[in-house]
Amino acid sequence: MLELADVTAARDRVAETARETPLEYSNTFSKYTGADVRLKLENFQRTGSFKIRGATNMIAQLDDAEREAGVVTASAGNHAQGVALAATRAGVDSTIVMPEYAPISKINATEEYGAEVVLHGTDYADAADRAHEIEREEDRTYVHAFDDPAVMAGQGTIGLEIAEQCPDVDTVVVSIGGGGLIAGVATALKAATDARVIGVQAEGASSVAESLQKGERVERESVDTIADGIATRTVGEHTFDVIEERVDEVVTVSDPEIADALTSLLERTKVLVEGAGAVPVAAVLEERFDYEDGETVVPVLSGGNIDLNVLTTVVTRGLVERGRFLRIRTVLKDRPGALVDLAELLADNRTNIHAIEHDRASKDIAMNAAEVELDLETRGPEHVLDLLETLEAAGYEVEVLS
Amino acid sequence: MLELADVTAARDRVAETARETPLEYSNTFSKYTGADVRLKLENFQRTGSFKIRGATNMIAQLDDAEREAGVVTASAGNHAQGVALAATRAGVDSTIVMPEYAPISKINATEEYGAEVVLHGTDYADAADRAHEIEREEDRTYVHAFDDPAVMAGQGTIGLEIAEQCPDVDTVVVSIGGGGLIAGVATALKAATDARVIGVQAEGASSVAESLQKGERVERESVDTIADGIATRTVGEHTFDVIEERVDEVVTVSDPEIADALTSLLERTKVLVEGAGAVPVAAVLEERFDYEDGETVVPVLSGGNIDLNVLTTVVTRGLVERGRFLRIRTVLKDRPGALVDLAELLADNRTNIHAIEHDRASKDIAMNAAEVELDLETRGPEHVLDLLETLEAAGYEVEVLS
Repeated sequence: MLELADVTAARDRVAETARETPLEYSNTFSKYTGADVRLKLENFQRTGSFKIRGATNMIAQLDDAEREAGVVTASAGNHAQGVALAATRAGVDSTIVMPEYAPISKINATEEYGAEVVLHGTDYADAADRAHEIEREEDRTYVHAFDDPAVMAGQGTIGLEIAEQCPDVDTVVVSIGGGGLIAGVATALKAATDARVIGVQAEGASSVAESLQKGERVERESVDTIADGIATRTVGEHTFDVIEERVDEVVTVSDPEIADALTSLLERTKVLVEGAGAVPVAAVLEERFDYEDGETVVPVLSGGNIDLNVLTTVVTRGLVERGRFLRIRTVLKDRPGALVDLAELLADNRTNIHAIEHDRASKDIAMNAAEVELDLETRGPEHVLDLLETLEAAGYEVEVLS
Repeated sequence: MLELADVTAARDRVAETARETPLEYSNTFSKYTGADVRLKLENFQRTGSFKIRGATNMIAQLDDAEREAGVVTASAGNHAQGVALAATRAGVDSTIVMPEYAPISKINATEEYGAEVVLHGTDYADAADRAHEIEREEDRTYVHAFDDPAVMAGQGTIGLEIAEQCPDVDTVVVSIGGGGLIAGVATALKAATDARVIGVQAEGASSVAESLQKGERVERESVDTIADGIATRTVGEHTFDVIEERVDEVVTVSDPEIADALTSLLERTKVLVEGAGAVPVAAVLEERFDYEDGETVVPVLSGGNIDLNVLTTVVTRGLVERGRFLRIRTVLKDRPGALVDLAELLADNRTNIHAIEHDRASKDIAMNAAEVELDLETRGPEHVLDLLETLEAAGYEVEVLS
């Protein structure tokens, strides 16, 4: 099994390419929770996520023949960028197979870091098949995204940094996809500190809780979560062994909770994370595990690579969750001043109108009426309820769209 | 005129409420520019902007009678939150007048920091009139947003931090609205280091360049910029004196350049800034002033309080600017497979479709055709041109919407 010495040995190798990331005290989240919350800003890592650590440690240990032949992997996300930069910095050639419809921003970034990108198939499984073909055809070394002790040891250097930056840490909270990150971090922390390690999965990709119960790895039929970085059907073999041994508790959070945490991080602490990076914060905010007042809790913000087009959708979702944004449809009498009346009603209710769509041609309604869709800024869940009651009392039929 | 001693004296007072913010080396922007770019993350400041520093320093110097009577100010933004928290922490009562249509997020935050919020009038001028009435009626002390030596001295503590965090700093880049921030920072830096100080304004609110030329303050008729934190018609009297004496150069950037910088900061460095916070980075990226390879350049990211609804609009604008997002309208022959043909053409061109709106009922087009609107993810400006040519060559009439 992976041991502290493996992680310690990885440290200098990892430092060649990756950086030590900041640990930042969060006033806001400490106030929200009563705990002493410190955020491990791994989203500030080079390539935007922790994956560069494991890839660097693994590639640094190749022998001359392997270095000469190059590496290959498959990924639609952070692992692609991590392997690309780690290989380039080590002077090793890299080929990354990505699904054909991978986000263009990720394809571009992977190429910029020096990899040759091969687009193949419609999903990760197709891409992985092709990558293994290339492994055989070109005698390249396959860099596994998580289930490799060298990769796990590299990710574990985050645990060493936390232990140094906050020696009295009580609890560290880490997301679980394939399990490479938490296996490394738990190994380092359990050996170097007395900290608890809490694992967090997305509800739609939660293979670990069931696996722990059965005592063997369970594979899900499918996965469904906005946290694409941890949308894996099962954890690895090596990583599962470590999780069974060293992780204190594994909990889950839902997509709306993830969107809410991501939005809070952006709005209150001004840092951008991807879905997987928000997962540990969601578990803290939702009190998915017990902690005490003043307890030092460190959520690891594992990455920040979210497509900006996706971000706008998630943020809107997060605002809806918190009663800060409301989209409604209603029908106005088609007479002069009808829209003014509605606008005044909203203003009296201290509701801001962000956007309005006014459609006189819609076929679903009576000829003398007009349908409007409104994007509204609201003050919170109670305000939303109050507003809907006010509108109803004034005779509007309201359909809540989101 | 404001002197280093004033800023130094402010330091301990400011530390009561404000925090020292990090200075972070930026790999990405250093690579883009050839300079050694370090970001002063003042957007991580409590209340989300530097305004808390000046307000804290000013309120700390009130006498007992003034403390007892409380403070008042007018603001639709960061100054409101800064004064609210500074006053509460000092045990002083505060009243903040905000325009009636101020963003709800800012009203909420100001109330949460302990102020009494009075909503009055439709713009800042109305709110300021009411605040001065309250000043007289209740004998409260008015906290000016910038043109007060105590406020300027408080903002200047950022300069002291930069001088300590990076003693060999060559150039510091600071946005100018009312001028309180740059007056304080320039006073500290010019006395404590050999650094250049560059001021940056938004084109739509650029009173300073003209004022410097005339040797006296010029007031603009109106202002128009997405950087609402610096959308002021003129600088202050005290701040202008300091700018004339100590700022090396004042340049301007456009709204699209600001949106682009904000988007780059979010995507590449994972930090959220408001428009005013992106302004110095825009000036660096656009090389609006000269700098040399390896020169240490520090843009001050002054704040991060951007309404998340606004953010989604600005990010989309930023992606359009960089050829990464394109919205088009075109017309399909209304026959089976017409949409498939178009989708295949786009896929061959490596363009991702984010959203599609398909309207058979539009009245502007022939009865046997259908209009579609497409949101597309593209790879850059060249890709956009290539794509539009490809579509035209295939017989599509394309209207670019954004």
